[in-house]
Amino acid sequence: MAGIDVGGTRVKSVLADSQGSVLLSHTASTPERPGEAVVDLVVATVADLLERASAEGVEGRLGAVGVVVPGLVDESTGSAAWSANLGWRDLPLRQRLRDRLDVPVAVGHDVRAGLLAEFHLGAAQGVPDALFVPLGTGIASALLAGGRVVAGSEWTGEIGHVVVEPDGPVCGCGRHGCLEAVASAASLGRAWRGLGRDGDAETLSRAVVDGDPDAVRLWHGAVDALVRVIAPVCAAAGTRVLLVGGGLAESGAVLLDPLRERLVHSLGHDRVTVTRAALGDRAGALGATLLAMEATA
Amino acid sequence: MAGIDVGGTRVKSVLADSQGSVLLSHTASTPERPGEAVVDLVVATVADLLERASAEGVEGRLGAVGVVVPGLVDESTGSAAWSANLGWRDLPLRQRLRDRLDVPVAVGHDVRAGLLAEFHLGAAQGVPDALFVPLGTGIASALLAGGRVVAGSEWTGEIGHVVVEPDGPVCGCGRHGCLEAVASAASLGRAWRGLGRDGDAETLSRAVVDGDPDAVRLWHGAVDALVRVIAPVCAAAGTRVLLVGGGLAESGAVLLDPLRERLVHSLGHDRVTVTRAALGDRAGALGATLLAMEATA
Repeated sequence: MAGIDVGGTRVKSVLADSQGSVLLSHTASTPERPGEAVVDLVVATVADLLERASAEGVEGRLGAVGVVVPGLVDESTGSAAWSANLGWRDLPLRQRLRDRLDVPVAVGHDVRAGLLAEFHLGAAQGVPDALFVPLGTGIASALLAGGRVVAGSEWTGEIGHVVVEPDGPVCGCGRHGCLEAVASAASLGRAWRGLGRDGDAETLSRAVVDGDPDAVRLWHGAVDALVRVIAPVCAAAGTRVLLVGGGLAESGAVLLDPLRERLVHSLGHDRVTVTRAALGDRAGALGATLLAMEATA
Repeated sequence: MAGIDVGGTRVKSVLADSQGSVLLSHTASTPERPGEAVVDLVVATVADLLERASAEGVEGRLGAVGVVVPGLVDESTGSAAWSANLGWRDLPLRQRLRDRLDVPVAVGHDVRAGLLAEFHLGAAQGVPDALFVPLGTGIASALLAGGRVVAGSEWTGEIGHVVVEPDGPVCGCGRHGCLEAVASAASLGRAWRGLGRDGDAETLSRAVVDGDPDAVRLWHGAVDALVRVIAPVCAAAGTRVLLVGGGLAESGAVLLDPLRERLVHSLGHDRVTVTRAALGDRAGALGATLLAMEATA
């Protein structure tokens, strides 16, 4: 069982046995904007995993392959509909991979697969109603409702491009004030340097701990923006736990404490837990192996 | 099969055959704050329905009863957890009704049941990913994801109490700037009269059509507030259709057109339809009959 997470900068892959236990894992760089060559990339990654397994004497039977990608994904057709960073549009990824690999193939969305992994193996175990928000270069979300990962239209989870400040900073998408342009790790780092300071979002988070007023203002602005988007989702779905992931979650309590405080205020009740996602940057690849297992079931 | 919707001012009930076709329906006033006496009220409503059926020569076999109520509801236990208007707290409604009625009983939430009815019989037919937002005295929501009505914690759907304007008008819940305090039919009527004008939200909507500047400003403020809460939910869940219900939806295009325009802007894509809910104030009772049918399945 192979699980492969094709990210904007890295390809993370794991080989697991039929019970889902990880036998080996590997990380490689993603070629710049692979576009449709992502098919070759996945085929080569699978071959590489099997070769490593053989070299290490690991039982490496390939029962199925799960592949997860960012952007717009239609799980029902296995189509990678759009990714700006990776350079594809309407790519029938599942079909192309089935033509090349002699095993069942599942194609999923990186964040939704990550939430599936958090539900089965990580911080949402036993909690059927959860919201997963990774805060990294960009921002997306995945929603678990009644133990099922929600996947409506191919735009599902694109909370990073909800406008939170109509007069806010320009987003990569060309509009102003998207959540991602205000509260992602990348945009916080940019805003911090825009104040003439050195470093990135991590530097900023340490300055917040030290009580630097510029840092505190910037940070709380980001927390407010996150809550403006997260609170309505939690209210509508009856979310019991908010899992924060991505690079920004590594700042820990300096992020999670004010996030919970403002979320509770905005919701008007305290029946929501805010916690760090448990599986880190392996969540997507682990979720991909779960999709592979489902594909053989 | 009886479906009963116990609202803040009216009790709507329908008797349906085993295929769900409505045989007769009735509306009565809700006694003020019935509290636990809602059990007697439901039992009397069922008896009254059967009596009417008999008098009108309708085949009125009572296979099961579905009851829906507002506020906080836990469908898994059939408990009516809290309603400020109706005056109960932690009422084991399903159990109490089972003790009194000799048929299966289902207890649900009025808005979630209304969405179930819209999905099976109304404006969301064939659309498995929908958001239903009735705008009346208060505001709540129900979310359909993958053809299933989402019910997480008992606070599910309480979008009316998400804070949208921290310095906004006082809400019935005591806090400032809840969505319900800015954009419900009741609060819009109050704000309109607060400007020294006569009438209610319906009068206001006509003044918007006439281009009255005060009316337009108030109306668009409400639309903006609605979009601030609705857009994140649609983004997270991949919602394909937004169903607007309640009294305010009767204003039609003057509400739905700007709502869609601003929603599309906030989401950054136009893959969402905004439409009026189809079943009006019968949605809850019709949904209750669907819950009753499920209870016998």
